[in-house]
Amino acid sequence: MDKSYIELQKIFKQIKNINDILAILSWDSAVVMPRGSIESRATQIATLKTLIYDIISNSKTLDFINNVNIDKLGEWDKANFSLMKKIHKQTIAIDRNLTEAHAIACTNSEMMWRAAKEQNNFKLFAPSLKEVLSLTKQIAISKASAFKCSAYDALLDIYDPGLTTTDIDPIFNNLKAFLPDFITQVTNKQLTEHKIKASKISLPINLQQRIGIECMKVLGFDFDKGRLDTSEHPFSGGYSEDTRITTKYKENDFLYGLMGILHETGHALYQQNLPREWTNQPVGSILGMATHESQSLIFEKQICKSKEFLYFLSNFLQEKFGFDDDIFKHENLYVSLNSVTPSFIRIEADEVTYPGHVILRYELEKAMISGELEIDDLPTAWNEKIYKTFGIQPQSDQQGCLQDIHWALGIFGYFPSYLIGAIMAAQLFDSLNKNIPNTPKLIAEGKFNHLNTWLHKNIHQCGSRYSTQDLLLKVTGEKLNESYYKKYLTKKFLYS
Amino acid sequence: MDKSYIELQKIFKQIKNINDILAILSWDSAVVMPRGSIESRATQIATLKTLIYDIISNSKTLDFINNVNIDKLGEWDKANFSLMKKIHKQTIAIDRNLTEAHAIACTNSEMMWRAAKEQNNFKLFAPSLKEVLSLTKQIAISKASAFKCSAYDALLDIYDPGLTTTDIDPIFNNLKAFLPDFITQVTNKQLTEHKIKASKISLPINLQQRIGIECMKVLGFDFDKGRLDTSEHPFSGGYSEDTRITTKYKENDFLYGLMGILHETGHALYQQNLPREWTNQPVGSILGMATHESQSLIFEKQICKSKEFLYFLSNFLQEKFGFDDDIFKHENLYVSLNSVTPSFIRIEADEVTYPGHVILRYELEKAMISGELEIDDLPTAWNEKIYKTFGIQPQSDQQGCLQDIHWALGIFGYFPSYLIGAIMAAQLFDSLNKNIPNTPKLIAEGKFNHLNTWLHKNIHQCGSRYSTQDLLLKVTGEKLNESYYKKYLTKKFLYS
Repeated sequence: MDKSYIELQKIFKQIKNINDILAILSWDSAVVMPRGSIESRATQIATLKTLIYDIISNSKTLDFINNVNIDKLGEWDKANFSLMKKIHKQTIAIDRNLTEAHAIACTNSEMMWRAAKEQNNFKLFAPSLKEVLSLTKQIAISKASAFKCSAYDALLDIYDPGLTTTDIDPIFNNLKAFLPDFITQVTNKQLTEHKIKASKISLPINLQQRIGIECMKVLGFDFDKGRLDTSEHPFSGGYSEDTRITTKYKENDFLYGLMGILHETGHALYQQNLPREWTNQPVGSILGMATHESQSLIFEKQICKSKEFLYFLSNFLQEKFGFDDDIFKHENLYVSLNSVTPSFIRIEADEVTYPGHVILRYELEKAMISGELEIDDLPTAWNEKIYKTFGIQPQSDQQGCLQDIHWALGIFGYFPSYLIGAIMAAQLFDSLNKNIPNTPKLIAEGKFNHLNTWLHKNIHQCGSRYSTQDLLLKVTGEKLNESYYKKYLTKKFLYS
Repeated sequence: MDKSYIELQKIFKQIKNINDILAILSWDSAVVMPRGSIESRATQIATLKTLIYDIISNSKTLDFINNVNIDKLGEWDKANFSLMKKIHKQTIAIDRNLTEAHAIACTNSEMMWRAAKEQNNFKLFAPSLKEVLSLTKQIAISKASAFKCSAYDALLDIYDPGLTTTDIDPIFNNLKAFLPDFITQVTNKQLTEHKIKASKISLPINLQQRIGIECMKVLGFDFDKGRLDTSEHPFSGGYSEDTRITTKYKENDFLYGLMGILHETGHALYQQNLPREWTNQPVGSILGMATHESQSLIFEKQICKSKEFLYFLSNFLQEKFGFDDDIFKHENLYVSLNSVTPSFIRIEADEVTYPGHVILRYELEKAMISGELEIDDLPTAWNEKIYKTFGIQPQSDQQGCLQDIHWALGIFGYFPSYLIGAIMAAQLFDSLNKNIPNTPKLIAEGKFNHLNTWLHKNIHQCGSRYSTQDLLLKVTGEKLNESYYKKYLTKKFLYS
């Protein structure tokens, strides 16, 4: 093996370890950290990020990169080396002080966002958001200049390497044209057809948790390498050998907490089944946030909100927990989870209106990065777009542009991943069904082995070996194609 | 301010941050980490330790040290600079590969120790303990050669900077002479006097936890900067702004879990009240493990096992939780917590027999480091010493040399801190009582403000400004003196 490449592997193994520590600190901040430690935690995180910066930007790293003889490398190593080069290039493209200033601004802005959201006071948040936006732009421009792309594409690439607005725009525009009529058709259909009125299920939280854990086991989560906790917003964190998911429970709405668990379990299965032999290298990491989201959404939407899964779940709840009340019947579960109504809060939106929430954010953040939209005008711009999309008017910024944490954290370019992920989920699930034709039957029986094996082999164990588009091409025979998503929504919400 | 010193402050702030992260990872490993992540966690810890090594041993650090103009520094900065120099000297004294090999050997040996303890099979543990001992010795010898001291003193100095066997030997020998007769007198006295037979208290664990939290608040623990959890062995971890203590509950023995909490609260109060303005520098850290232990022991022994506190606790349990059963009377609590009987397990030992457990370990580990005692002979040597000390014979190595984790982790030189801490606790508490003569009354009323203010001012807020002996001299007018400890034990167990 090439000696310089071996040295690079050591360096990137060290970075992987530090990133894993960052993942644990991030879980810790959200789940257990006392409030009085916010500032120290921010300093700790900044310290580790600076160390990563210093390790990568060290002149030795570049020397090793320049001395690698690519011909000596196998295919996986080639892909790995190409990721190393990219990480190096994007790291040194951005000034160390800028990275630090950005981290500090984000910590401050996150605190201001929390206060502003609580007090429904956007003006309290605006100054720190301006600071974050300005620094994020500077980072974007630095990276864009190194990679010869637009500033917004440079940001997109952080979360979904290789995906650009050129990929996204036509797809989102197509959906934007498709959705308004479709939403009307679906809501009209549901108005006439839903004879059962969905009933919420009240259950003690410790029981909800026990059920959640049992469902995670059924779906294939490995508790020897992970855990389930509670946090203000559900998330999936940690790393392959220690995958930690969270949910938020509502005592009077069992399905609310459970859906958080099922969604995050999808993320977790991806993470727990990344290629073991590459676990310490860039090529062994997740491909990007859209792919990550596709894995959570296949579980949450395609699988767990399907009639088949809810049939299984209803039986499971009866057999394992003795619940035989009508509210546990699969018909009630299905209506509860699949009712479509335009609403204000993205994370509570149904499957059909969800894309509108993402497209709105995508358009707004592009405009903020390009300078077309000023922060002070954000609330109005937001509310106008929500009205255009759904015909409803937020009563407050809590229901509007203060609802998401992303921009407060300097995360611009991430939102599209949610919708690209949903589109990928439909496209991949279509292929999965073609390959395992009895999938619906297996789901109804609570059997997930075949399905998981397919996902492991085709997605999880590919790590970052291929680009997102190449992975889709390899697995489904096509690049990203929104028609599967439209077909899936149409079939589920209009013809079943 | 001296420029080189300012640079050193930055470097040591960075190290402080990494050490805080290590503290969180260590808490995480003991409290929440899934078992499948043991190896990754070990690698993460090794990565951070190596980074600390690299930062300190970087030639720039030495340049800065050599360029500091001491005359420009104030007293605290002088003390801080002298600690910086010491940390630098002891870091570079030890080869980087040796540090790494030691860390790996300890991880392995810890796993073997767990298995060996569970299976009561010392032979399973012996090979990895030999490896750890050999590497620990090499570290000790390297450090000893740089600091011109004995190998064992070099180890002691890790946990209690400045304390040597020359300080410890006469004190421990004195106690060793004092204790056998004293134990006999106390047990005889208790045999004739304890009319109440101690009754264990059964309580649901979530209730035990609620009571523990209320007691912590009464004692002054700041929950905005800390938390209480559960682990296999109680400990206090984290850092000033995020102090995390744990206990272990037994459903049928309320006082068992509570005493863990009260002991660790003493540690926590020390940590939460270190000098704020020096929090990122070596001089702002805890002085050493003996001082740390003295703070936990003042709370556990001098305060919480006293008649006064138990009188308060009994009332508190009645008023806050409605417990009026006889077993909650202070007489029962007192007898339960202060019965003296020689026993095998150190962490369950009473106040009077505890010193014997420490002295035994001190003698054995000195012999292991000097080479007089071979690992294979450890079980026999242990059992002989226990028999000599208490006249009892362990039935298994689980009850003997497999009970403590310390040596498995390469921690040699730490055990004395437990007893030095107990001696310091008695000496400091004597001064405290002289300064605040109504201390017993305040304790009986559950008022800890005065007492805490005294401890903050005289101990906690001194950080590492003075050596242990100088701190004692400053606060009590004397260096470490075991006569206070003997007086305390005699008064409590023979004349009250």
